[in-house]
Amino acid sequence: MRRPGICRKKPPMEPYKHTVKYYETDRMGFTHHSNYIRWMEEARIDFLDQLGWSYQKLEEAGILSPVIATECRYRRSTTFPDTVSISVSVEEFRGVRLRLNYVMTNEENAVVCEAASEHCFIGKDGKILNLKKEYPAFYELLIQLVRPA
Amino acid sequence: MRRPGICRKKPPMEPYKHTVKYYETDRMGFTHHSNYIRWMEEARIDFLDQLGWSYQKLEEAGILSPVIATECRYRRSTTFPDTVSISVSVEEFRGVRLRLNYVMTNEENAVVCEAASEHCFIGKDGKILNLKKEYPAFYELLIQLVRPA
Amino acid sequence: MRRPGICRKKPPMEPYKHTVKYYETDRMGFTHHSNYIRWMEEARIDFLDQLGWSYQKLEEAGILSPVIATECRYRRSTTFPDTVSISVSVEEFRGVRLRLNYVMTNEENAVVCEAASEHCFIGKDGKILNLKKEYPAFYELLIQLVRPA
Amino acid sequence: MRRPGICRKKPPMEPYKHTVKYYETDRMGFTHHSNYIRWMEEARIDFLDQLGWSYQKLEEAGILSPVIATECRYRRSTTFPDTVSISVSVEEFRGVRLRLNYVMTNEENAVVCEAASEHCFIGKDGKILNLKKEYPAFYELLIQLVRPA
Repeated sequence: MRRPGICRKKPPMEPYKHTVKYYETDRMGFTHHSNYIRWMEEARIDFLDQLGWSYQKLEEAGILSPVIATECRYRRSTTFPDTVSISVSVEEFRGVRLRLNYVMTNEENAVVCEAASEHCFIGKDGKILNLKKEYPAFYELLIQLVRPA
Repeated sequence: MRRPGICRKKPPMEPYKHTVKYYETDRMGFTHHSNYIRWMEEARIDFLDQLGWSYQKLEEAGILSPVIATECRYRRSTTFPDTVSISVSVEEFRGVRLRLNYVMTNEENAVVCEAASEHCFIGKDGKILNLKKEYPAFYELLIQLVRPA
Repeated sequence: MRRPGICRKKPPMEPYKHTVKYYETDRMGFTHHSNYIRWMEEARIDFLDQLGWSYQKLEEAGILSPVIATECRYRRSTTFPDTVSISVSVEEFRGVRLRLNYVMTNEENAVVCEAASEHCFIGKDGKILNLKKEYPAFYELLIQLVRPA
Repeated sequence: MRRPGICRKKPPMEPYKHTVKYYETDRMGFTHHSNYIRWMEEARIDFLDQLGWSYQKLEEAGILSPVIATECRYRRSTTFPDTVSISVSVEEFRGVRLRLNYVMTNEENAVVCEAASEHCFIGKDGKILNLKKEYPAFYELLIQLVRPA
């Protein structure tokens, strides 16, 4: 049960923008597919920044958040110097495993890639963190962001 | 129907070896997760080489084989200068979409990553190739390599 | 001799900003030194954009501008998520070989890297271009930007 | 003065081989120039391995060897799947700053890149190491490898 008086409004999240670099293309003429995995990290870091829980803040608190899985479905090619917009959302989180979704669109608003990543949170002792107990504010924030199924 | 007398034996495939580079690590101390996607490409290229259908041969024949999806599940961390063995197998192929599987193990033979990639084949005209019709030898080879479910 | 009435004012060039990505760090904890070479490209592309001669415009005109040399002197380390400002200037150009200089500073305005790159211009025929003859406006612009010795 | 009876023979150094990866090419069709900086690291690591002073051994001893400068002169383009041979030699070392030279050749034995890197050695306290005093065996080895001017 949620206490009354606490603001339940989800923060309005801005998509992350990445302009394709020349060095991200390969000789097929398009962005090499491995770069989308890197853009997911950029977008995730920006997402956490917007939530007020930056990677830096997490690292300073001794929290590591390793990637345990990634998935990418490439829909359309991109190339230098396209600008790709990446929207991040929380697909699943019950306290341990965080699953994020990414929708990447080009300047014509066409989907170029749909992706997902999974993470856990590890504390200073190298053990998986119980966020609910140890970082309840962060836990609540993530829970609140889970998209309705 | 297959003609009798043709050797049906699958070629014995060697795993691909990749030694983690210093520049592939990140400040968490381990291999950055995006590199596994690149190693999959290295292993796939080696796999096709072993089959006698190198990327170069494909490119010279005007065949492009874009990546349409990737999936990675990271099981254990690796770091410089670990050597990772990557075994590639054909999970699915019926003529259009090729789905490959990758099992990556470390020097202790522990699985560090399980992955998959999906590909199609595109001809000089930019259209999806009917491999069975246009490259029957390559088609047969891939069909033959599909792992029994 | 320059004709009177033509504006000789150098365009005011804005430094290029790059925020260090997590994946650009290595296990020493800092930005891997190879990334500065990539940032030079990003800054150079931005520089040409500001001059009105974007890479794209050059590529569409059939002009390639390969890198023939790079030099980097690393003064201070950087790491995620530092923002690096990169100022580009023309050190030398007499018509064939373009030598650019780069000064990279951190948020405290301390120099983190001093660098240079050399380029030539190649036309559709694969031969070195005589910019003065074939692209006099671009030639003039570059000549004008050469820093006084 | 060197004591008699100590073997002064320089170890026979093998060139390092790197096969260009598909993902190392860019849309110009060739290897992106930033990769040569990474190959220099690969070759340097191999060079130190051959000398019996691997990066790992250095790191375990608490010695860091940051790159303080790099230079590359690109002579010929390379592309996937060329194999590049990289010969490393010690250009200069008097005890503090190590300057290495790299000559990279293609399969036709033509020089594709000439390069150099400069390094210092830093101890556990973050200060520049006096190798002669603290690691005399390593110091002697490097001094012995300096190419005659």
